[in-house]
Amino acid sequence: MAAEQDLMEKVVALCKRRGFVYPGSEIYGGLANSWDYGPLGTELKNNIRDWWWKRFVQSRDDMVGLDAAIIMNPKVWEASGHVAGFSDPLVECKNCHQRFRADQIDREAPCPSCGKKGTFTEPKQFNLMFQTSIGSVEGDKNRVYLRGEIAQAMFVNFKNVLNTTRSRLPFGIASIGKAFRNEITPGNFIFRTLEFDLMEFEYFIRAADWEKTFEYWLGEQKAWLAELGFDPAHLRVREHEKEELSHYSKRTADIEYQTPFGWKELFGLAYRTDYDLRNHTEKSGVDLQYTDPDTNEKFIPHVVEPTFGLTRLLLMVLLEAYQEEGGGDERRVVLRLKPALAPFKAAVFPLLKNKEDLVGKARGIYDALRRDFSVAWDDRGNIGKRYLAQDEIGTPVCITVDFQTLEDDTVTVRDRDTKEQERVAIADLPRHIMAL
Amino acid sequence: MAAEQDLMEKVVALCKRRGFVYPGSEIYGGLANSWDYGPLGTELKNNIRDWWWKRFVQSRDDMVGLDAAIIMNPKVWEASGHVAGFSDPLVECKNCHQRFRADQIDREAPCPSCGKKGTFTEPKQFNLMFQTSIGSVEGDKNRVYLRGEIAQAMFVNFKNVLNTTRSRLPFGIASIGKAFRNEITPGNFIFRTLEFDLMEFEYFIRAADWEKTFEYWLGEQKAWLAELGFDPAHLRVREHEKEELSHYSKRTADIEYQTPFGWKELFGLAYRTDYDLRNHTEKSGVDLQYTDPDTNEKFIPHVVEPTFGLTRLLLMVLLEAYQEEGGGDERRVVLRLKPALAPFKAAVFPLLKNKEDLVGKARGIYDALRRDFSVAWDDRGNIGKRYLAQDEIGTPVCITVDFQTLEDDTVTVRDRDTKEQERVAIADLPRHIMAL
Repeated sequence: MAAEQDLMEKVVALCKRRGFVYPGSEIYGGLANSWDYGPLGTELKNNIRDWWWKRFVQSRDDMVGLDAAIIMNPKVWEASGHVAGFSDPLVECKNCHQRFRADQIDREAPCPSCGKKGTFTEPKQFNLMFQTSIGSVEGDKNRVYLRGEIAQAMFVNFKNVLNTTRSRLPFGIASIGKAFRNEITPGNFIFRTLEFDLMEFEYFIRAADWEKTFEYWLGEQKAWLAELGFDPAHLRVREHEKEELSHYSKRTADIEYQTPFGWKELFGLAYRTDYDLRNHTEKSGVDLQYTDPDTNEKFIPHVVEPTFGLTRLLLMVLLEAYQEEGGGDERRVVLRLKPALAPFKAAVFPLLKNKEDLVGKARGIYDALRRDFSVAWDDRGNIGKRYLAQDEIGTPVCITVDFQTLEDDTVTVRDRDTKEQERVAIADLPRHIMAL
Repeated sequence: MAAEQDLMEKVVALCKRRGFVYPGSEIYGGLANSWDYGPLGTELKNNIRDWWWKRFVQSRDDMVGLDAAIIMNPKVWEASGHVAGFSDPLVECKNCHQRFRADQIDREAPCPSCGKKGTFTEPKQFNLMFQTSIGSVEGDKNRVYLRGEIAQAMFVNFKNVLNTTRSRLPFGIASIGKAFRNEITPGNFIFRTLEFDLMEFEYFIRAADWEKTFEYWLGEQKAWLAELGFDPAHLRVREHEKEELSHYSKRTADIEYQTPFGWKELFGLAYRTDYDLRNHTEKSGVDLQYTDPDTNEKFIPHVVEPTFGLTRLLLMVLLEAYQEEGGGDERRVVLRLKPALAPFKAAVFPLLKNKEDLVGKARGIYDALRRDFSVAWDDRGNIGKRYLAQDEIGTPVCITVDFQTLEDDTVTVRDRDTKEQERVAIADLPRHIMAL
């Protein structure tokens, strides 16, 4: 347990030290567990995002993308049940007015905030949706919400997508974007935050196909985790009990990851039935039925929804990749990121900083590689230290230009994982990196 | 003028018809000029975003990325001057309580909303920042804002970036993300919306270098517009008058595009002096000075800020690319998008839908190309109609598999812009598309 907590601290420290993740608004004392992604974190996050988009959207025939507004007509959230149901029951301390989740507090114990005893109210609803107002006239009628999930836009645009693409059942609509939840207990670094990035699709099917579709996407979610480099022993599938199912779901499963703070949801998979399309049809008065182009049969499709938390996936990728090896002079921290995820695909070093011909040669290689890959440059300290600096940010290969390079146009290529070195011709470098 | 307005209507209609842009929350009657990007619009938007990131961040030595939270500590916005100054003076109709921008209304004329005359209040400030609240206790102290610009996070994280990268002046911090403004008069399709995507960087320099830096980035902004395919005759640079400069700026220029609704800002470029870093140093108490690593000189850097509106760039790319040609049977709409921007790089057609060998062959080509490119498939109607359907979404080439293909493994490749056709060997297709 101590070692596990230690891992979390180490990853948080690495993130801050190397520019993966900074505390949000840090110079003003931060803000409610908010975080900003630094130069390396931004690249890592973009790489996860782009892999997902390519794998689940662009390379599939049955999926189209959607990029919808964060602020939607509030009727969307009334219809979806979020305004009424999307809330945690809370108790409030009558003395200090601090609120706590009813299921996480012993109402007979002293208030954790002010210490006074027996002052808690009855549990009350507290809506998790962020509220704001739009327009040029003040008042309730302009109240809008920041979306609490990205799913609703995919339902609301269902007809638009049908009308403008040639999508036929089964097919999916995919989105990546921010969602906002006024969580009472954000925490565990970037695991639970007030705003977070989701990658998600709604997969539209005939009701009869829901069980096989559910199994199929569970398999695909697991398959992608394997491609991302996750050890299956660190993952488990947890089926939701009947009582914890969302108001719209008939079956929900979480893929959980063994974090230092326990088994936690990484991906979700929900069978939402026809709840959303049916509701929006009733509340909006717009017919969201699907017409089978062969039989002309009309019906409201059912939906299976795989959800991939981008922000928490980034955290779990880092936890999974982080390793310490060796001791003494041999000690190193290495991020065993899949090359597709690594912020830099390669680093280029001149053996010595003050030798113009080495530096010039290295610079040429750096500039050439940079046209196609994200590449780091380092000329400080000794080669060993530069290796260590690249290992801990996950750079798959380090390329060193030395005196032999000036003679035969070969360089030393050192592998992050094996630490093995080989001579590679400069002309072969792009192929070498691509092969990763 | 009529033709110009016509162009706007045509582009909006094309966007809706082909799935570039849908009205937001449409089935609920929409919401204050909000828009959702459909399958093609999402790809186009992502292509612009990725091009910008590659060109201005990844391929440069002097730029690093940042991806910051939308909700920041409100002290950030107090320090930046936005809470106090980021507002339009408004007048309110005392009869119907609708508000209007003071500079856009004649207070002697009837109210455009209710028609009553002479009922306007004196102009009042109305803050453009969206407000919301966080946390478990209600009240003013938890009031937060949705960011009105993405710039502040780059200033607030200046020290973090300095500490975790080897950035030396001059260098930039770049971000892409959503900003929110409670505009009184959103409109002109996606040109002015309550939420919008910005691409921006803060370029940190010595004060003495500001004029040459300003000119350099103005040149780079123009250069990218040329690469994107804009006709220089449709662009102009407009220098801001002293009176219209933002509270922080010493010089600001807009690159404007000639839209059907007039010359409108596409990109902005502002010399923000050391206003932001100085302010945040004073208000936060954290020293945001830069230390020259050679001379140990300490000072607050100055900033030149190039801003690229992603949302409006997408609109202007469409306006610029849209063309109608020919008449009668020869009439076509063509989007002359640069291939890098096109949602699909190619489309693959079997000449006939009911010939299994043609369909199988075409399917094989489609599946092979799709590993590396975004590719469309169409087997409906005749080839001429398929060409037209691809022309109006900007697909650079159409590949047709015909009976000759079955004999010699060549296909007909038809060019979007010239309408010329040539025979290309299947094996050469990836190279052919890459050459675009």
